[in-house]
Amino acid sequence: MTDSGLEVDINSDMGEGFGAYRLGDDAAILDIVSSANVACGFHAGDPEIMTATFSMARAKGVAVGAHPSFADLWGFGRRTIPHSADEIERLVAYQIGAAQALSSYAGHPIRYVKAHGALGNLTQTDRAVAEAVTRAVKAVDPTLICLVIALGFQDRIARDAGLTVKSEIFADRAYTQEGFLVSRKLEGAVIHDAGKAAERVVRMVKQGAIETISGQLLKTPIDSVCVHSDTPAAVAIAARVRAGLEQSGISVKAFVATR
Amino acid sequence: MTDSGLEVDINSDMGEGFGAYRLGDDAAILDIVSSANVACGFHAGDPEIMTATFSMARAKGVAVGAHPSFADLWGFGRRTIPHSADEIERLVAYQIGAAQALSSYAGHPIRYVKAHGALGNLTQTDRAVAEAVTRAVKAVDPTLICLVIALGFQDRIARDAGLTVKSEIFADRAYTQEGFLVSRKLEGAVIHDAGKAAERVVRMVKQGAIETISGQLLKTPIDSVCVHSDTPAAVAIAARVRAGLEQSGISVKAFVATR
Amino acid sequence: MTDSGLEVDINSDMGEGFGAYRLGDDAAILDIVSSANVACGFHAGDPEIMTATFSMARAKGVAVGAHPSFADLWGFGRRTIPHSADEIERLVAYQIGAAQALSSYAGHPIRYVKAHGALGNLTQTDRAVAEAVTRAVKAVDPTLICLVIALGFQDRIARDAGLTVKSEIFADRAYTQEGFLVSRKLEGAVIHDAGKAAERVVRMVKQGAIETISGQLLKTPIDSVCVHSDTPAAVAIAARVRAGLEQSGISVKAFVATR
Amino acid sequence: MTDSGLEVDINSDMGEGFGAYRLGDDAAILDIVSSANVACGFHAGDPEIMTATFSMARAKGVAVGAHPSFADLWGFGRRTIPHSADEIERLVAYQIGAAQALSSYAGHPIRYVKAHGALGNLTQTDRAVAEAVTRAVKAVDPTLICLVIALGFQDRIARDAGLTVKSEIFADRAYTQEGFLVSRKLEGAVIHDAGKAAERVVRMVKQGAIETISGQLLKTPIDSVCVHSDTPAAVAIAARVRAGLEQSGISVKAFVATR
Repeated sequence: MTDSGLEVDINSDMGEGFGAYRLGDDAAILDIVSSANVACGFHAGDPEIMTATFSMARAKGVAVGAHPSFADLWGFGRRTIPHSADEIERLVAYQIGAAQALSSYAGHPIRYVKAHGALGNLTQTDRAVAEAVTRAVKAVDPTLICLVIALGFQDRIARDAGLTVKSEIFADRAYTQEGFLVSRKLEGAVIHDAGKAAERVVRMVKQGAIETISGQLLKTPIDSVCVHSDTPAAVAIAARVRAGLEQSGISVKAFVATR
Repeated sequence: MTDSGLEVDINSDMGEGFGAYRLGDDAAILDIVSSANVACGFHAGDPEIMTATFSMARAKGVAVGAHPSFADLWGFGRRTIPHSADEIERLVAYQIGAAQALSSYAGHPIRYVKAHGALGNLTQTDRAVAEAVTRAVKAVDPTLICLVIALGFQDRIARDAGLTVKSEIFADRAYTQEGFLVSRKLEGAVIHDAGKAAERVVRMVKQGAIETISGQLLKTPIDSVCVHSDTPAAVAIAARVRAGLEQSGISVKAFVATR
Repeated sequence: MTDSGLEVDINSDMGEGFGAYRLGDDAAILDIVSSANVACGFHAGDPEIMTATFSMARAKGVAVGAHPSFADLWGFGRRTIPHSADEIERLVAYQIGAAQALSSYAGHPIRYVKAHGALGNLTQTDRAVAEAVTRAVKAVDPTLICLVIALGFQDRIARDAGLTVKSEIFADRAYTQEGFLVSRKLEGAVIHDAGKAAERVVRMVKQGAIETISGQLLKTPIDSVCVHSDTPAAVAIAARVRAGLEQSGISVKAFVATR
Repeated sequence: MTDSGLEVDINSDMGEGFGAYRLGDDAAILDIVSSANVACGFHAGDPEIMTATFSMARAKGVAVGAHPSFADLWGFGRRTIPHSADEIERLVAYQIGAAQALSSYAGHPIRYVKAHGALGNLTQTDRAVAEAVTRAVKAVDPTLICLVIALGFQDRIARDAGLTVKSEIFADRAYTQEGFLVSRKLEGAVIHDAGKAAERVVRMVKQGAIETISGQLLKTPIDSVCVHSDTPAAVAIAARVRAGLEQSGISVKAFVATR
């Protein structure tokens, strides 16, 4: 193995419990990823869990970001709750502020913002939502980085707004020719084989392009790879993706300094 | 009337609606007070209402502060929800952050923190809670002022912690010999006569001392007078208190610059 | 005035406060209507308010029904929260049960079910939702009456399911040619003049038909007239509608016995 | 092993997830217990989970009861939320109703009510709360059985109220001389050894008496044994208790017919 000179971040959702509930094995995932998207209390998370997650990420040298979402604990942020773009702007700003305060309190300030679930998907496909989230970040703290879905609306919009943008690909999701995620309802939408997922990620990072389900390549910056944290197989897939990258000479590294 | 050279702030709780609900006549109260304690979404308030309240306060030149509370929408923050001091520290930090973000977003950053309802009462009477709230303020932003109940635990603790402290008296609540609020269950706990409330406030501000229910004077800095916003008579009492102060040559002025 | 032999119910939403919040003048409206749709805790209402509302309705001889909705306190049940039909069936069943228990507790059992807000609108326009709500009623207690929007999907579906159905018209909303409500975004959607609303209601009840915005008549049973309770003008309009009906010899009477 | 002629119920808390969250291995526990206390949405549970739990219990022939609690999802019902006795009465009634509706919907109606967590503890130690819960059961449906903590306040109060009462002991909790639970903060409060827990349960059921931590026997009817469902060791302990009982010739059987 030769050092390719390439480096990429691995990010995952963290701190997605609530009260007595826990979801996923955060400690195990934090040993694999370089960035942790921390739930802000709207789809998951509470002040205790947020603080504990920021502290654990700090101890493990993992960068942290705010992971705002719709106010939808019941639906875990996976449902599109009807809101005007203005309302989205404000509920995102609220959550960024909460995450800033608790991450500072934990001695490990957030450095980026990534929208969660249904809200995150809309930042890829809906211009108004992408603009709203971007405006929220810019208004609250323009030094915060936008972690966005590669080739989605927010990717362009946040760059145009003068913010620092990092683009992510998904380790285990197939892409349409337009660069959107293939609907989970369709065959082949999710790549269940950890080995295949890892190989595909390595190819995409090396090529600087997304592979679509029909085999095309869509050129894009790839700054981060998103791995899941909330499925039984999550840790195994994440570990395999990291190993695959490193074995190909690609360094896994947060896109911000973490110490 | 001669200018006494004295000045004092008048503060009131604001933005205490939720969703479709509203409580109190915020627009009218904001014409009277010099500082607005803005609910942060835990006992009342949501991102929309918070933003609108910060914006309205800005337009009227009224200073704003975060008004964190227990997570108790049903009980409007008036119930003591069991929490460890550490938990209180974190839920206060969360709310301060949310208020910082939305007030910055509205172009009118919060300058102080005042605990609400049952949590506020505990900062007066419970050392551990007073310390927890103080630590939260200090950790999130030590330039934020603590608006505290005069002579209560947080008054001393926040000063000892090196924070800027402003002490408030209540316009319409009787005080015990210890400087605590007389329980609402007891006769005479609440002063319902606007004129009497106003006269008493003027005396206390001039004397630099709290008048107890038995007529004693307890020396204390008095930086602010708290008036209610959520009762039918609230606007009338607040207006009378302000008029009484001004007629006595006492300027009503926020304890921070607002423009 | 001659007795026309006709009778009709007037219904309105009630108990739509939460915790410290109140919405509308329930006591005044309960003096006008013959049926009260009581919020069940999902868009508004809590056990205290539900019980107080059932008790007040009992004292005033007003029939009561469950008024289930999406779990959306922030949006007051006016937003379409994404749910499968099965989920809707269960969340409606839950709320009916809660209302049954508290209304029995208050000595004034519910006799009907009417869906609220966005959920109610869907029972008019969406077959799957209409079926889900109908199945919930039938499963929990088939003796409960379905109060439905005249000519909507649930009107037919609940009759076909063998349930007792009562059909309502809106006092102040214009109808399309299809019998749907004209969108609030369009001119003329809401009739603001109390006198005109009352006259139109009387005409519709007498004709046994809905008047569309273009002047057509759509034949339908009209068992109840829905009046609002949550706007400043609500009491005045409701009173005018009742007066108009009575002056035309139409008795205002619940569609169930209330004593 | 000889049949002792004795029989006893084993109960456990079930359906304590919320939305995407799950707690405990309900399917495994339902193979062991004879009665399932189903969370009603206030400390855990939602209409989907409640329905699924009632259905699974039905399929396995396990009796079901409502398991009402304080409205405290964040604290999982383990905190004493301040309420008047009247308020407790109403929030319990609400939850019983919701559970009645969804259990009927699932074809497996609840037959009993057992208060959860902090509320349950208060029914043992606080007369006013014990009376409130009892009144709620009686008002909503006096044919519902009260499953109560043996020797606690509700045990006596519910019998005096004419309700059917079943008394439970805890498989793994030590008792004081007064028959209260030893505080979890004290040494020996929880019996962690499954074998010892099982032996003690068998002795208590055979003797018809609670063993206190100091070795005394307190005579009481013992109709049910409560086993936990939410700890890692829960399934093992529950299985051992059941095996111990059966090996001693004590039948494990719900206190109500389940088919």
